[in-house]
Amino acid sequence: MGRKVAIVGVGHSRYGVRSDVNLPELAWESIKEALEDAGISQKDVEFVVYGNVGVWSSEPLPAIVINEYAELTPAGTMRVEAACATGSAAIKAGYDMVSSGNADIVLVVGVEKMNESPTPTVVELIGRAGNYFWEFENFGLTFPGYYAFFATRYMAKYGATEEDFCRVAVKNHYYGARNPKAHFQREISIEKCMSSRYIAWPVKLYDSSPITDGSATVVLASEEVAKKLTDTPIWIKAIETASDTSNLSKRPEFLHRHSVMLAAQKAYKKAGIDPENPLRYIDFAEVHDAFTIAEVLTYEELGFAKPGEGYKLIREEQVYIGGKIPVNISGGLKAKGHPLGATGVGMAVEVAKQLRGEAETRERQIPIKHGTAVVNNVGGTGHYTYVFIYSLKP
Amino acid sequence: MGRKVAIVGVGHSRYGVRSDVNLPELAWESIKEALEDAGISQKDVEFVVYGNVGVWSSEPLPAIVINEYAELTPAGTMRVEAACATGSAAIKAGYDMVSSGNADIVLVVGVEKMNESPTPTVVELIGRAGNYFWEFENFGLTFPGYYAFFATRYMAKYGATEEDFCRVAVKNHYYGARNPKAHFQREISIEKCMSSRYIAWPVKLYDSSPITDGSATVVLASEEVAKKLTDTPIWIKAIETASDTSNLSKRPEFLHRHSVMLAAQKAYKKAGIDPENPLRYIDFAEVHDAFTIAEVLTYEELGFAKPGEGYKLIREEQVYIGGKIPVNISGGLKAKGHPLGATGVGMAVEVAKQLRGEAETRERQIPIKHGTAVVNNVGGTGHYTYVFIYSLKP
Repeated sequence: MGRKVAIVGVGHSRYGVRSDVNLPELAWESIKEALEDAGISQKDVEFVVYGNVGVWSSEPLPAIVINEYAELTPAGTMRVEAACATGSAAIKAGYDMVSSGNADIVLVVGVEKMNESPTPTVVELIGRAGNYFWEFENFGLTFPGYYAFFATRYMAKYGATEEDFCRVAVKNHYYGARNPKAHFQREISIEKCMSSRYIAWPVKLYDSSPITDGSATVVLASEEVAKKLTDTPIWIKAIETASDTSNLSKRPEFLHRHSVMLAAQKAYKKAGIDPENPLRYIDFAEVHDAFTIAEVLTYEELGFAKPGEGYKLIREEQVYIGGKIPVNISGGLKAKGHPLGATGVGMAVEVAKQLRGEAETRERQIPIKHGTAVVNNVGGTGHYTYVFIYSLKP
Repeated sequence: MGRKVAIVGVGHSRYGVRSDVNLPELAWESIKEALEDAGISQKDVEFVVYGNVGVWSSEPLPAIVINEYAELTPAGTMRVEAACATGSAAIKAGYDMVSSGNADIVLVVGVEKMNESPTPTVVELIGRAGNYFWEFENFGLTFPGYYAFFATRYMAKYGATEEDFCRVAVKNHYYGARNPKAHFQREISIEKCMSSRYIAWPVKLYDSSPITDGSATVVLASEEVAKKLTDTPIWIKAIETASDTSNLSKRPEFLHRHSVMLAAQKAYKKAGIDPENPLRYIDFAEVHDAFTIAEVLTYEELGFAKPGEGYKLIREEQVYIGGKIPVNISGGLKAKGHPLGATGVGMAVEVAKQLRGEAETRERQIPIKHGTAVVNNVGGTGHYTYVFIYSLKP
């Protein structure tokens, strides 16, 4: 079904509070790196997909401003948005374009400059990723509140503790401290996390991902072009998607996110992975830990653990390098940061570097056995889900 | 190159000031009509692409809110934006998805509710479709001003008059008056247009498209599915794109928009149309008349007239039904209206209805000889260009 598509070049800005650059400059940091990594120039690019939410930006229609700054005209362009899964939606648009044969080389640029607006404004705007009319304006719910619902229910049903969620934060900060591109490059202790203030009980400050600026870029190419450009193309074996209602009360089950399970099942099937035993096929995962409870839920939704047993994976340190399934060795959204439009593209960059064996330091390089990784990027509470299977094998 | 893709169902809301409905309700008007037209239900839809600019909306992340309201979950979803070409960019994303084989049925929903914000705010926000930092904040230019530059230059270079531009408005209002979905359904006279106030000399109020709310939906399907669903699939023979700088001073030529010419050349080539003689292949065109000068420029950029001779086509009434090449028989952006995210999708709906011979009235039905039409949708002053060739022939 369609042509094979590979990532042939990657770029990644430093994530953080990037008041030192404007939006096009921030985007250019990763565009430049990706073009150089692929060994191509702007004129080789046929189309540029921008992933950007941008409601907090003075450039709400950013594609053309960045395209001009990066000297990418006259390549066609569009912006894609899917809340926190925006970067992944942008990759899908680029992937479909190459897979269909309508382009051979497409650039996918995820970029977000969230710290232009005051923090309360950003949190309000993120809150609107739900259903503004019903949920936000009527009872004031923002995303820490949504995930507090999940955490409370999970603890009550399965006996996990607040410490278990903090263990996710500790792991992700541990690896963030070893990632020179991460927003937070300091380790934290369980005590530090446990003593941080509640945002929405039981979700604490250190259970939450930060407000981050950043950009990430991937160069997508057709099989023929990929083989000319690189010896280590990273093949996109599957991109599968699903959506769910923003109104949680309309969902048949409250705790696990149906859209994540559905998209994962479809992606495993397409990539030839047994959904009952994905760990036999997969070396590692990058998942959407906007809140620590989300990472624990994802272990179960992706089939790494049975329902109710995900917290044991982190408690037993099975999601570190050397464990059953390393997760978020980039530092994750929690420590690497979560610049919405860039997040999904940044996950793809991390996966490509890990599969190529090119992590910056030995400590952060995952041993590659199967040559395959899974990525899960979620908008809202599963409103938008994108699941990717990447592989060294075409 | 990829699978064939057809439009198999279309829907179109009434365009206008739609304070009677909220955003999901407005979208649903065209979604419902398109599903019924295609003879499918929500569960048949694999993915939904939303075209929406939405910076003026209380729902800045509209995809999931509409998806939930229209009962389209768990289909995957994303929003696409390309300023005034947003609807066309959404069609391209859906087209690539079906063409690649990654989906068989995709819904493309263009929707915009612009009248939620006060008019000066909307005009400011549209102004930001350029380069906010350089152009808008520094010297206050908005789009009437940009197109005033084009009109002034065109008049000086080729001898066209303000009356010629008003003739475009008269034609488009003439057909808008015959389109029950149009924002403006009243004819205007040359005198009415000529005596309207200047927005940016020589661009007058009646040279300008209105601030419109509306939605339009198309159902895209693969060849196999299309043949099961309908006897009159409308085939997408080409979607080609280009971009240009927002900074006009960086362009090699000022008057004609390079991106429009480039995308048209590529689209004609892909569809097997001689770019020297497109009128031998094409029955009619829907083009981006955000301002009347833009329609005149487009005649030339699409090859309907030589450079500098476009204004003669309207002066001699060759762009009416019965003339050489009927243009904007829908009423165009000028009279049908310009709800940004819906505009490109609305153009596709119009083309499908015309090619099927299903215009609401005999007066507005274009005689179909070749079975082929061209669509041009532009963001900014050619910042984003999308050109489509639609045909009754696969």
